[in-house]
Amino acid sequence: MAALRLALAQLNVTVGDLDANRRLIEEAIHRAQAWRADLVVVPELAVTGYPPEDLLLKPQFIEANARVLERLSPASRGLVALVGFVDRDRQGRLHNAAAVLAGGRRVATYHKQWLPNYGVFDEKRYFTAGAGSLVLMVGGVRVGVTICEDLWEEAPCRALGALGAQVVVNLSSSPYHAGKLRVRERLFARRAQENRLAIAYCNLVGGQDELIFDGASLILDARGRERIRGAQFREDMVLMDLEPPQMGPGRPSRAARGAARVVPLSRALTERPRLRLARARRLLPVEEVYEALTLGVRDYVRKNGFSTVVLGLSGGVDSALTACIAADALGPAEVRAVVMPSRFSSSATQADARRVAKALGIEVLEIPIEPMFRAYLETLQPHFGTRAPDVAEQNLQARVRGTLLMALSNKFGWLVLTTGNKSETATGYTTLYGDMAGGFAVIKDVPKTLVYELARFRNRRARPGDREPAPAFGRVGPGRRAGGPGVPIPASVLARAPSAELAPNQTDQDTLPPYSLLDRLLKAYVEEDQSLRAILARLPAALPWGTTGAAQAGNRVDPAVAQRVIAMVDRSEYKRRQGPPGIKITPKAFGKDRRMPITNRFHQS
Amino acid sequence: MAALRLALAQLNVTVGDLDANRRLIEEAIHRAQAWRADLVVVPELAVTGYPPEDLLLKPQFIEANARVLERLSPASRGLVALVGFVDRDRQGRLHNAAAVLAGGRRVATYHKQWLPNYGVFDEKRYFTAGAGSLVLMVGGVRVGVTICEDLWEEAPCRALGALGAQVVVNLSSSPYHAGKLRVRERLFARRAQENRLAIAYCNLVGGQDELIFDGASLILDARGRERIRGAQFREDMVLMDLEPPQMGPGRPSRAARGAARVVPLSRALTERPRLRLARARRLLPVEEVYEALTLGVRDYVRKNGFSTVVLGLSGGVDSALTACIAADALGPAEVRAVVMPSRFSSSATQADARRVAKALGIEVLEIPIEPMFRAYLETLQPHFGTRAPDVAEQNLQARVRGTLLMALSNKFGWLVLTTGNKSETATGYTTLYGDMAGGFAVIKDVPKTLVYELARFRNRRARPGDREPAPAFGRVGPGRRAGGPGVPIPASVLARAPSAELAPNQTDQDTLPPYSLLDRLLKAYVEEDQSLRAILARLPAALPWGTTGAAQAGNRVDPAVAQRVIAMVDRSEYKRRQGPPGIKITPKAFGKDRRMPITNRFHQS
Repeated sequence: MAALRLALAQLNVTVGDLDANRRLIEEAIHRAQAWRADLVVVPELAVTGYPPEDLLLKPQFIEANARVLERLSPASRGLVALVGFVDRDRQGRLHNAAAVLAGGRRVATYHKQWLPNYGVFDEKRYFTAGAGSLVLMVGGVRVGVTICEDLWEEAPCRALGALGAQVVVNLSSSPYHAGKLRVRERLFARRAQENRLAIAYCNLVGGQDELIFDGASLILDARGRERIRGAQFREDMVLMDLEPPQMGPGRPSRAARGAARVVPLSRALTERPRLRLARARRLLPVEEVYEALTLGVRDYVRKNGFSTVVLGLSGGVDSALTACIAADALGPAEVRAVVMPSRFSSSATQADARRVAKALGIEVLEIPIEPMFRAYLETLQPHFGTRAPDVAEQNLQARVRGTLLMALSNKFGWLVLTTGNKSETATGYTTLYGDMAGGFAVIKDVPKTLVYELARFRNRRARPGDREPAPAFGRVGPGRRAGGPGVPIPASVLARAPSAELAPNQTDQDTLPPYSLLDRLLKAYVEEDQSLRAILARLPAALPWGTTGAAQAGNRVDPAVAQRVIAMVDRSEYKRRQGPPGIKITPKAFGKDRRMPITNRFHQS
Repeated sequence: MAALRLALAQLNVTVGDLDANRRLIEEAIHRAQAWRADLVVVPELAVTGYPPEDLLLKPQFIEANARVLERLSPASRGLVALVGFVDRDRQGRLHNAAAVLAGGRRVATYHKQWLPNYGVFDEKRYFTAGAGSLVLMVGGVRVGVTICEDLWEEAPCRALGALGAQVVVNLSSSPYHAGKLRVRERLFARRAQENRLAIAYCNLVGGQDELIFDGASLILDARGRERIRGAQFREDMVLMDLEPPQMGPGRPSRAARGAARVVPLSRALTERPRLRLARARRLLPVEEVYEALTLGVRDYVRKNGFSTVVLGLSGGVDSALTACIAADALGPAEVRAVVMPSRFSSSATQADARRVAKALGIEVLEIPIEPMFRAYLETLQPHFGTRAPDVAEQNLQARVRGTLLMALSNKFGWLVLTTGNKSETATGYTTLYGDMAGGFAVIKDVPKTLVYELARFRNRRARPGDREPAPAFGRVGPGRRAGGPGVPIPASVLARAPSAELAPNQTDQDTLPPYSLLDRLLKAYVEEDQSLRAILARLPAALPWGTTGAAQAGNRVDPAVAQRVIAMVDRSEYKRRQGPPGIKITPKAFGKDRRMPITNRFHQS
């Protein structure tokens, strides 16, 4: 029996760049034609990019999107193409839609039935839900059409199963977070098994502001077994000859169909030599996050018209990791590091900063902050009087650094990357307009314990053979593995107790509990919305990437510590609101994922 | 015939302050009892404050809200109380609800049927829509219950009319923008007339982050005539004896009712001496905006636990107006002004800045920025080399000022108010971390032309008798009216061409078109999402507050100018995203009202 040749084109489109998106889609269709595919699928809203947000409220944007679709239609000779776009219906309502292009014209349109309006999603702000399923007859195979969320709900596949669909195609723009791949795989397997149909899921790839789309398109057979997967975090075309599972019930009666449509397309399948499956390698958990961050930086920088980035390099692990990611994303020639020592910087951290830059091959500028810091202190002295130095003087130093980076940015057109992690962002252990000043916050959603894991991962990757090195500098304190010579992040950076270096002998743990404890508290409170009572009853188990950087803590937490951390999170909302966008890698990131009021007197008890 | 005594309690509750909100609601019920009211209404979600945003995702928040409602119930002796709260149904779904309290217990619950999910609203993120109307029989009068959006749609009042409702009560938390009062009045009059029922609309009052709730509760008779209104921008209790309009159709059959419920409450109306109507004065259009801004500052500052604010006073109209608003909101003793002259500041603007502070009675600190500015220039010189001074040096000055204000804030616990207007915010004619640095952006949604009108309004109010003064300093340039002696904003401030004073002889109009033109362009593009083509065909008519501050422009605009302004708006999205929250006073403010992607390549043509 002839197989259905499927092509899933996971494209990296850009929001609003309609013309470039059209060219990408056209190329994908042509490539699928060259492979003699019967059906080519591109991601959800591929024409506009995802999510287009309030561009959807501009009638001229909707019209431009419709013109792109019209220009695409003639490309659909000799195959069927499913293209995500915005459809305006006769009542003027918008739909998140899939156009079915065949024989050079649009032959049908499907409207997404389940509109997500939670987490980072606002689809009910724009779209009206569709009513009714769509089944295409492609060379005698019944292909059901769904868009993203439709596959996460039970009803659409059940309806398609009842209509006799053998394959369900899904156009997605499904944002990444660590662990989501497994969630998707399980869910899709269940959908396949429940309804005895194959599933072909085509996901977007690329970065859009805070979101990363990870690709990783997937085809499962009717028993829920994975047959092929697309690459993670890069463009790919997944090609497969699918032997359609046994046909379901015969053609359903008009009554059973309800609002559903079955559209016969005349095409017949031909016998061809079968394709060999080229399955992409599946990334390791920490590697996956690293690749997400790299793609996020590359796309934010380039899609916003920048080429070069600049960041402050302190000798700490956060800025060292950010430098690695930037160098990997853009190439070391496009990264500038600025070392900005103060009276409180140790010579060891400065030396480490230079070592990181050297290992990565990125250019270093050295700008001491003392002249500006002194000018501020002297100028403010008459107003500050005899008050003891406090956070005001600490923030001044961070703000001088932020101002220097922005001055370089303004003068040379470099985008400033900030280097704060999620543990700091959550607790407000940051300086607004200081270390928070910049265009893109690379690791803002990465908890400190994971920062260490990523740093070690990057060091391992730098070593040929990926072997465990002998520690270069004797026994290394908190870390399990350490950097050796030749790796970008020196062992001393991994071993040193974290410090903002804004006051004499300062360490983070003067203010914060150990990160191994803090990150678990934050996971419970921020990501899982747990109450203080629940947290005190049972702290989440150790974080999936292991507990490193400090001594292992138990499953209990001192109530006073928990309360203090929660209060820090609550009262830092105003700071986060003014921070730059950054890459979401956890199930709940700060940003449109978590919409907390600033004015908020609700206190946990 | 005995009348129904209605009490609408427009309260200023605080998001999350459940205990304080409970006390406010309890006091309102007691006050209504003292007035012998039959029915007392408090605003939508009065228990939690509005909008509670993602606090709604915390189960402990929902439980705490339910406990508040339980504690409130016993207060409902001798009257019926309608209280807005969050109801969790048996399936665990949340509803935006009104509890009907009577005889000391909850006797019924209504679920909002229309959930707004546009503009600043995200109600579908949290709530499930209710199904079915609720009519209460209060002393023989049929009272229909609605919540906010229910009254904006046709269906709910129609259903209530069919159920024989004579009065429709509406619990609202309806955010303010200039001109909305008239929109509401017209709409409610239509609803009353369409269905021949009286309408009693009770609105929230107060500031919550970017939103202002303006109160202005309203009772209309069944012919749509306004009978009484509550105060704007302050707490008030609206009391009225309503003679119920003629009863509609008799008790409808069970079938006609569908999911609707009619709940008889045993209470009978008693004859009492009629109340005299105490109708609040209606504010003038510019006065209304001024009061909105004042309330916004007062509530943001106090609800966030601050008492004192600090702002930079430049001698320009924006900071002068902001100082007036702050002094009116908090009292002059709680406002600090900082004058921060540079090598580019004229002595005239500095003198004006001091004059504003003196007239308002606020303390001035004087901190020249030269030492820091010089330190930055010298330090950066080796890196900047021979490049000509540009925006980098301009931004440095603004950032030194921002850093000084933040240092004072950190040292003394003062909240920094920023002074940028909407015209600047829209075009990005601002410095990130410079003049944008601060906790609250008072006039961020006020176009520059309206800034001038508000300044003149505030000056007029400062003069006894509110008369037109003879211009104090000869003929005053662009302004129609000018400040005289004794008024807070000197005529010279209103007359001077606007300038950022960051470069020699700089004026805003070196970069921007005249504000009279710019503000109309921005209204079309930002607030109305018009395309460039539509804007070129016809620019919006003059702005409602008149065109001042520059020569009147026609209805045509140079395509190159329009294109440049649109490009400025588009590419400033990243700046706005990092700006502090500020008060919404237009139909579409920057913030959650306008959710544009930063990464966005859609260009108008």
